[in-house]
Amino acid sequence: MPGYSDAREAHLRRLRRIEGQIRGLQRMVDDDVYCIDVLTQVSAATRALQSFALELLSEHMAGCVVDAARNDPEEGAAKVKEAADAIARLVKS
Amino acid sequence: MPGYSDAREAHLRRLRRIEGQIRGLQRMVDDDVYCIDVLTQVSAATRALQSFALELLSEHMAGCVVDAARNDPEEGAAKVKEAADAIARLVKS
Amino acid sequence: MPGYSDAREAHLRRLRRIEGQIRGLQRMVDDDVYCIDVLTQVSAATRALQSFALELLSEHMAGCVVDAARNDPEEGAAKVKEAADAIARLVKS
Amino acid sequence: MPGYSDAREAHLRRLRRIEGQIRGLQRMVDDDVYCIDVLTQVSAATRALQSFALELLSEHMAGCVVDAARNDPEEGAAKVKEAADAIARLVKS
Repeated sequence: MPGYSDAREAHLRRLRRIEGQIRGLQRMVDDDVYCIDVLTQVSAATRALQSFALELLSEHMAGCVVDAARNDPEEGAAKVKEAADAIARLVKS
Repeated sequence: MPGYSDAREAHLRRLRRIEGQIRGLQRMVDDDVYCIDVLTQVSAATRALQSFALELLSEHMAGCVVDAARNDPEEGAAKVKEAADAIARLVKS
Repeated sequence: MPGYSDAREAHLRRLRRIEGQIRGLQRMVDDDVYCIDVLTQVSAATRALQSFALELLSEHMAGCVVDAARNDPEEGAAKVKEAADAIARLVKS
Repeated sequence: MPGYSDAREAHLRRLRRIEGQIRGLQRMVDDDVYCIDVLTQVSAATRALQSFALELLSEHMAGCVVDAARNDPEEGAAKVKEAADAIARLVKS
């Protein structure tokens, strides 16, 4: 089971809210809403996605990475490398 | 009319794709997909949102900001300040 | 003259402070300071660099871009495209 | 000893290069270099800082966090929380 399974419902609620934000952006563009107001909503949706990712990452580190480290040093090192690469993608996106 | 109205359909297609990516994240979380794979998709959705924002911003600058600058210096300065604040929010999100 | 020349001294002071922050990071690494504390300082230096860039960008838009737009539509469009590309680099760094 | 001590010299070389980039920015501003070219260098320096931070974070996770996780679950959880907070600061800077 992934590290986030305990918090699955909270994550799904969050993602449904973000889905709603994206549909809200579609309505704004459909209604010719002023560009700057659309951009303000894009920043809000981006921050919501980031918060979801950081939460998921934290649970992954506390679960999968720590468990692997406790079981076997090599497995732990591989999980750390994998997590570090995912963090790099997040920082650069 | 906002600067993006000529490209409205392209923007709506893009936003619908992003909406699909967010629903895809929900399915991944529902299916207990491995955390790192979920995070990879979050980075992809974040980059798609960013590209949409940058496109919209560019059209706004080429349209609303330039038109205001040509009409009236003060109006132009106000539009530039507004755009600069939106850019700051994008950079910091 | 670039749009930032009126604020040159303020920009130079800012850049010297950032230079000091980077030298501070060197001392921390030299002194084996705890990783998390070093990372906290890296985030501070990154934000300072970002603020400098946003200030410079705002002055550029208010100066060079608006002037070009008022002189000649084509020149204005070229300056907008150039600024939009610089913003994209900032957002993605 | 922090997780990065084995790579200290490489980190110090990197930080000195970044220091040189910041001094280079000062020269550009002193010489009234075109704003967009200055902004391009700011993006380069920001990415260099990010790479340094990601490297340090990876070493910290492979060293301090994994060691704590192997010694004591509670200590491991505390180190994970601390690292997750540092990652959040990086992602949001």
